[in-house]
Amino acid sequence: MEPTLSMNQYSLVTNLMSLTVATMGAAALFFFMSRQSVAAKYRVALTVSGLVVTIACYHYFRILESFTAAYKLEDGMYVATGIPFNDAYRYADWLLTVPLLLVELIAVLNLPKKESAGLLGKLTIAAVLMIALGYPGEISSDAGTRWLWGWLSTVPFLYILYVLFVQLSGAVDRQVDAAKVLIKNARLLIFATWGFYPIAYTIGTLGLGSGASTEVAIQVGYTLADITAKAGLGVFIFNIARVKTEAEEGSAA
Amino acid sequence: MEPTLSMNQYSLVTNLMSLTVATMGAAALFFFMSRQSVAAKYRVALTVSGLVVTIACYHYFRILESFTAAYKLEDGMYVATGIPFNDAYRYADWLLTVPLLLVELIAVLNLPKKESAGLLGKLTIAAVLMIALGYPGEISSDAGTRWLWGWLSTVPFLYILYVLFVQLSGAVDRQVDAAKVLIKNARLLIFATWGFYPIAYTIGTLGLGSGASTEVAIQVGYTLADITAKAGLGVFIFNIARVKTEAEEGSAA
Repeated sequence: MEPTLSMNQYSLVTNLMSLTVATMGAAALFFFMSRQSVAAKYRVALTVSGLVVTIACYHYFRILESFTAAYKLEDGMYVATGIPFNDAYRYADWLLTVPLLLVELIAVLNLPKKESAGLLGKLTIAAVLMIALGYPGEISSDAGTRWLWGWLSTVPFLYILYVLFVQLSGAVDRQVDAAKVLIKNARLLIFATWGFYPIAYTIGTLGLGSGASTEVAIQVGYTLADITAKAGLGVFIFNIARVKTEAEEGSAA
Repeated sequence: MEPTLSMNQYSLVTNLMSLTVATMGAAALFFFMSRQSVAAKYRVALTVSGLVVTIACYHYFRILESFTAAYKLEDGMYVATGIPFNDAYRYADWLLTVPLLLVELIAVLNLPKKESAGLLGKLTIAAVLMIALGYPGEISSDAGTRWLWGWLSTVPFLYILYVLFVQLSGAVDRQVDAAKVLIKNARLLIFATWGFYPIAYTIGTLGLGSGASTEVAIQVGYTLADITAKAGLGVFIFNIARVKTEAEEGSAA
């Protein structure tokens, strides 16, 4: 059952969710229109960035609808209606967007086809496994079940970090100098924002998730992490594509 | 009457349907934007791929709305409201998308006009017959009626397979080498995914469809088959168009 929220707590969560719908939608328009500003070979990276935030825009619309249906105003407080808040929309979103976020990062590197295909294969499978293994834990109310699936889901997460920070080093070093720092920062952004999700999951597992302020903190945290991980990463990808386009046009001229 | 579902069963079905709305919508944007990446003569294949997933996006929105209207939460279980779940939206979808899926496959082959028109005529008529003959069986609760229309619908399905795997062989062999394997795999994908639909229909006819877990399995199966048959085939078509574009631009240079 959803915890009772004060009017300010309820407003904070719903306003932030609504802000996210607007942010993701605007980011989608920006990435789609910016395709024209970069060389043809980097456009697919911007297309995929746009798809990620389009999918997230859709899901935040659903999440907001589900959250408002789960609450009703009674004596100045927001109490549960009994209709469950479907936080699992987040898993549906991640199942699609997390592999695509890795696709946009690899696409903007513009590696040789074989190398690119190998990396994409590994990263996509690991990303899907990471989300799919988290889901049975998320929908369970048993602590043991939650810990089990949480740890199983951590294995592909660590593997993704290994591919990005170890196996990808050579490819990053071959990039033009101006793009190197941006790519390393994009990688750090993935590490930092994706790290929030297991923290929120752990808070839920520790049973701290029963109070109103913890519920608010988790929803606010997920929302800010999603904006940074999706729209934020997309801005990095756009900058990397632009810097590489400029460097190549400069050397061609 | 719809079988009673547990909260997890209901969540699985509705989350997957919602995920399909997002997947089809994102795929539509991708196919429409990718038109610029292939030679002009292959763009119609990508346009049609985009139309198929746009139509499916719309229908999954309707299917999800109908499914949620058919259920209400009572004592922790989802029970039938009495409003029937309209699974026949699927037939409306297939009546439009199944002929178009065959159109995108033929279009990307870029055959001589006369050959192309002949194939399209035969395949479109067979596809419309296949769906239309299945419909009277689907809406009937009489096993005899269901078997009769099911078998009638199988005749055009077998004819489509005959056209794709026998009559089309010559045309496939004339394609550039790099595209041949992709086209054969696209054909196998059609065979494998379309094969799921008569299996689901047969399960319903055998009366196995009365239990909750069978209902869930059928809905999950239809959803995954639709994603693969539509968005998945579209990705194949895009790759075929890109490989053919590259081969032709390479030989022109």
